[in-house]
Amino acid sequence: MKKLSIKTTAHSQFREITREVQAALAEIGLRDGAITVFVPHTTAGVTINEHADPDAMDDVIHALNKLVPWSDPAYRHAEGNSAAHVKAIMTGSSARVLVEDGNLQLGTWQGIFFCEFDGPRTREVWIAAG
Amino acid sequence: MKKLSIKTTAHSQFREITREVQAALAEIGLRDGAITVFVPHTTAGVTINEHADPDAMDDVIHALNKLVPWSDPAYRHAEGNSAAHVKAIMTGSSARVLVEDGNLQLGTWQGIFFCEFDGPRTREVWIAAG
Amino acid sequence: MKKLSIKTTAHSQFREITREVQAALAEIGLRDGAITVFVPHTTAGVTINEHADPDAMDDVIHALNKLVPWSDPAYRHAEGNSAAHVKAIMTGSSARVLVEDGNLQLGTWQGIFFCEFDGPRTREVWIAAG
Repeated sequence: MKKLSIKTTAHSQFREITREVQAALAEIGLRDGAITVFVPHTTAGVTINEHADPDAMDDVIHALNKLVPWSDPAYRHAEGNSAAHVKAIMTGSSARVLVEDGNLQLGTWQGIFFCEFDGPRTREVWIAAG
Repeated sequence: MKKLSIKTTAHSQFREITREVQAALAEIGLRDGAITVFVPHTTAGVTINEHADPDAMDDVIHALNKLVPWSDPAYRHAEGNSAAHVKAIMTGSSARVLVEDGNLQLGTWQGIFFCEFDGPRTREVWIAAG
Repeated sequence: MKKLSIKTTAHSQFREITREVQAALAEIGLRDGAITVFVPHTTAGVTINEHADPDAMDDVIHALNKLVPWSDPAYRHAEGNSAAHVKAIMTGSSARVLVEDGNLQLGTWQGIFFCEFDGPRTREVWIAAG
């Protein structure tokens, strides 16, 4: 298992990590198969989506923040970041990417994103074959 | 890796692909383990849900379209399909299915669905063991 | 493949199953790699999120129920539980956990949760290496 350290710089942020995952894949040495990209946090997630136009992921952040407002008088979780947990569950804690000839197999417009919902923080991403 | 070509016929559509995935599994020749079904697009996803009553997935499309309206004055992504990106992230870019004796292991009511959020288009689905 | 039987006790419930999954892992005998935790239902899901403060998952249930109301005059699915299908799709039908030295690798605050959206019912969870 390879562990990446990621520093996020905003409260909500989709930070592309495709290059870091490809580098981890080279270290792991997997030629063919699939890898799992796992986020060991409860207020952050990982997703695969558009990396060509940064406006696309900014719009996603806007839409998710509108869907799940930060404040709700019904929230009881003492840390006050329940909305971040909801968004982490919606995006998911792992992504799966197929591998051929040692290369991540992604669609033309796809990149892998670390999804920060309660930053800025220093975070981890775990990557393993299989 | 096996690649399926899928033609969607509506702007939003959950198209069942269980049979095509089972056929790909036979070509791959996997007897026991698990497969990954991956969508290499940023405005479409894949999910596993009810295939017995088509009304169920029509209701899901209705609910997702209500949650994430197509138009929002705050959207900046030039292609105008930000809502499709949000829904693709919610459903996810891959599904995982266990395999025994060469057969997909699914619950009684479950089918595998390609989730089109910005169609109609010709799309791909990638399937691999592991 | 190991099958767990889970009894949920409420209409909406996030029930932690980390201990049961770890026990299944011991029976499977996997030392290093990853496992898939799969839910063979269409109105329930599985997720990985905070297990330290139960208020956090209660707030998630509250937020999801507010996002996807149970009743909507547009719903056509005869069973009347379309909202549960939407929430099952949002959370997902499988979770993936890395394994080292026979132990599930999870972040400090993470637990594995069975997500009931149309209970109470007796449910299954399927666990397999790979």
